[in-house]
Amino acid sequence: MARGRISILTPDECLALLTDARLGRVGVTVASLPEIFPVNFCVIDGDVVFRTGEGTKLHMATREAVVAFEVDQFDVDSQCGWSVLVVGTCSEERDPNRVLDARRQLPDDWVPGDRDHVVRITPHKVSGRRISVPSA
Amino acid sequence: MARGRISILTPDECLALLTDARLGRVGVTVASLPEIFPVNFCVIDGDVVFRTGEGTKLHMATREAVVAFEVDQFDVDSQCGWSVLVVGTCSEERDPNRVLDARRQLPDDWVPGDRDHVVRITPHKVSGRRISVPSA
Repeated sequence: MARGRISILTPDECLALLTDARLGRVGVTVASLPEIFPVNFCVIDGDVVFRTGEGTKLHMATREAVVAFEVDQFDVDSQCGWSVLVVGTCSEERDPNRVLDARRQLPDDWVPGDRDHVVRITPHKVSGRRISVPSA
Repeated sequence: MARGRISILTPDECLALLTDARLGRVGVTVASLPEIFPVNFCVIDGDVVFRTGEGTKLHMATREAVVAFEVDQFDVDSQCGWSVLVVGTCSEERDPNRVLDARRQLPDDWVPGDRDHVVRITPHKVSGRRISVPSA
């Protein structure tokens, strides 16, 4: 198979890929140890927004931690794909109108539970890269 | 759509899912900021093993950092899937025979480059969960 090449994505390309995606992963530090959680999300006004219940992710938000957020899509057969990394500050959305708006825009929750809190990640840095195979 | 339910995976189930997967994500802290990188990997003797070049991931390995490693597979249409999280210590594999063995077992590199180093994550903790939809 032809070997792929890496290209760096522009901020606009990263935002377009984030906007089309629904599943991402949040990287946080809990008691000095790293963890990664998958979440359903959407992009609102340039921020990554997701629902959560009481727990680690809400705790990160209420203390405005800096977190990583990653989305990727790779195809093992063609060995092509892309990844986007957001590093930003996590905060809980407390404005009732914005909470309602976020709940309307977010994908449905996959599991029942009290996931009433809405968390935003406001990006400080967005980067991404694509692996593509040159056409023959 | 019927709402899913979460079940906790046993360590053996987590290991089986890790062993079948090829693409995972490493969560590390770089200059006090979290980052997440996708990597091709395999499991050897219970450790997560991947190739890397000079750079952040190798730096984490040479200082034996504790990192997170996540693998997941979700289907947006059926809203089912699973995720496995490994937290462990990163180290560079320096035994020449083990390096050769790892290179044989690892998936091919998707992009050209000097990714001659082999890194192991030795798990301290493995956890996972599955979201499934109860049958009608």
